[in-house]
Amino acid sequence: MNIKVLKNKDIARVIINEPKTYNSLSFKNLNDLIKELKKLDHDIKTKVIILEGAGKGFSAGHNLKEVRGLKKRVKYQKLFNLCSKLMLQIVEGKKPVIAKVHGAAYAAGCQLVASCDLAYSTKDALFATPGVNIGLFCSTPMVAVSRKISRKPMMKMLLTGEPIKANYAKEIGLINDCFSKSNLTIKIGKQTFYKQLEMPLRKAYAFTSKMMTVNMMAMDAKEGISAFLEKRKPIWKNK
Amino acid sequence: MNIKVLKNKDIARVIINEPKTYNSLSFKNLNDLIKELKKLDHDIKTKVIILEGAGKGFSAGHNLKEVRGLKKRVKYQKLFNLCSKLMLQIVEGKKPVIAKVHGAAYAAGCQLVASCDLAYSTKDALFATPGVNIGLFCSTPMVAVSRKISRKPMMKMLLTGEPIKANYAKEIGLINDCFSKSNLTIKIGKQTFYKQLEMPLRKAYAFTSKMMTVNMMAMDAKEGISAFLEKRKPIWKNK
Amino acid sequence: MNIKVLKNKDIARVIINEPKTYNSLSFKNLNDLIKELKKLDHDIKTKVIILEGAGKGFSAGHNLKEVRGLKKRVKYQKLFNLCSKLMLQIVEGKKPVIAKVHGAAYAAGCQLVASCDLAYSTKDALFATPGVNIGLFCSTPMVAVSRKISRKPMMKMLLTGEPIKANYAKEIGLINDCFSKSNLTIKIGKQTFYKQLEMPLRKAYAFTSKMMTVNMMAMDAKEGISAFLEKRKPIWKNK
Repeated sequence: MNIKVLKNKDIARVIINEPKTYNSLSFKNLNDLIKELKKLDHDIKTKVIILEGAGKGFSAGHNLKEVRGLKKRVKYQKLFNLCSKLMLQIVEGKKPVIAKVHGAAYAAGCQLVASCDLAYSTKDALFATPGVNIGLFCSTPMVAVSRKISRKPMMKMLLTGEPIKANYAKEIGLINDCFSKSNLTIKIGKQTFYKQLEMPLRKAYAFTSKMMTVNMMAMDAKEGISAFLEKRKPIWKNK
Repeated sequence: MNIKVLKNKDIARVIINEPKTYNSLSFKNLNDLIKELKKLDHDIKTKVIILEGAGKGFSAGHNLKEVRGLKKRVKYQKLFNLCSKLMLQIVEGKKPVIAKVHGAAYAAGCQLVASCDLAYSTKDALFATPGVNIGLFCSTPMVAVSRKISRKPMMKMLLTGEPIKANYAKEIGLINDCFSKSNLTIKIGKQTFYKQLEMPLRKAYAFTSKMMTVNMMAMDAKEGISAFLEKRKPIWKNK
Repeated sequence: MNIKVLKNKDIARVIINEPKTYNSLSFKNLNDLIKELKKLDHDIKTKVIILEGAGKGFSAGHNLKEVRGLKKRVKYQKLFNLCSKLMLQIVEGKKPVIAKVHGAAYAAGCQLVASCDLAYSTKDALFATPGVNIGLFCSTPMVAVSRKISRKPMMKMLLTGEPIKANYAKEIGLINDCFSKSNLTIKIGKQTFYKQLEMPLRKAYAFTSKMMTVNMMAMDAKEGISAFLEKRKPIWKNK
């Protein structure tokens, strides 16, 4: 299998391990990634998921050889739907997913970085939505990327297809910098974050007020606040 | 009372003055802030509201001792609803509210800064959404903060709970840098700004076109344009 | 006519040429701009539209002398509707529109820059939404500008009316930096970009998946991918 999962205590590393296709997001790899991420989301031990690529870089996006061979509308649609399913799995999953990027993150590979909750890269990493160069506009990648960076830099990436460097990617908010906290809290928080962002302000406040209440009712918040007030380390119940 | 209001001509300073709780947003302080801000919104003389904290810093957010003592779901919900009411009062009020921050602005204190129209701080100010550290995810604070900064830096603040410095807060758009103009114009403008931001593009244009018309029908716009064209100082009617 | 169109191969330059009113967006100029942009959108040869101003700067926004003379609600509304129509024509048009800015881009002139897909300027260019100074809050301009830059800098521009320099405009995302690719791809991509941005995440993915499928069905994508795989230059069919 091309998707390798390495666990170390509460951290799970998910590695796309198909260097010969530059870790392409083929049907097989997309399906395996979704399967592994789902499994980890229900794995009691895992608190944080780190997503990375083996070999020269992170991921070049779809497997163009495979794409060329599909030929039928129904098959293209199936591929893009599967890819969207992976991205939604990351956004809607309960555990924080951190992209660890080196080399190139292009097209759907760039989308994968944007979809992660946090993203860190090496200094020489490159990000691009280069579909325009091969006549296949990066429509699905821009859904994720346009939700992280502002519109003028997004449009430039889309219309020119030119790669941007890690430095600039940080400046515009595509990537950011390590990590480990109460599991239940993050579960509540992460899901609430994405839900409220798509609500009008009043609705978002009503919703998050309710979520903070649910959160307070859970043991962790009570223990956390008590530990803080009593100047001792908290003992988390929901790991 | 812990909320002090000082007026100087058209500027009103609202000071949270409870240094022993680091200007916590307790039930009492939230209620008093809402009351004072509402009063100022209807005060003919006041044009700009400056919000600040007394003592070591701006505000540490909720009063955790009070929160711990609430114990019942209905009381938690009441507190978070009241806090949301304050934030909405600021956003939906007619007068520009400027946060003047020193020291720490944490959790709901950080939300308070984000909710203000403008925000200025000292160089050593710190901003954080540290709920994750005590098991109470900053769900309501993120409603305000996620509307000012982009998603990756927001997610990092939420998941790590680490404070950010004033420099970086400026870079990502959480704070910016003084002020005094035609009152009516700002009243129309401020309310229109927040309404349109939540509308789809076409609807936003239809709405603001109507608002600019209403604005033009008012005496201030006519006087302003005439004064500009006649190279003289405008005499505002609606103060 | 005050709107000049110069074509050079696949690039069309649209020049607002009324230096004596600082290229104001009068009824006449708005109508002529809309007419010319529509014509270019259907012009088979034109791939990219560059929008610029003649004389000292880009555009000072509405013609205040004209505005003052309108006097009736119905006429104001007509003017602002026409201005919104121009902005929507740019956003919803099929061809990328690039603003080339020098001197001042104020009020509706600043909105015009924000509405373009990409924007480039000279180092000494200035951008402002100064309506507050003359009592006519920049309500319609903020629709476009608030969709490009974040809320705190936007609010400062609106409430102070002060101009910002090109450097800072770049930093906050109001402008960015040349260009020419497959026509059909860009047509699909540009329209999809703005549509998806206003959809919730799930809907945006469903929509763009469909658009990528449509894109794949077109000849350009197939040729582009084949050329890429065969290491040759693509021969675009849809010019």
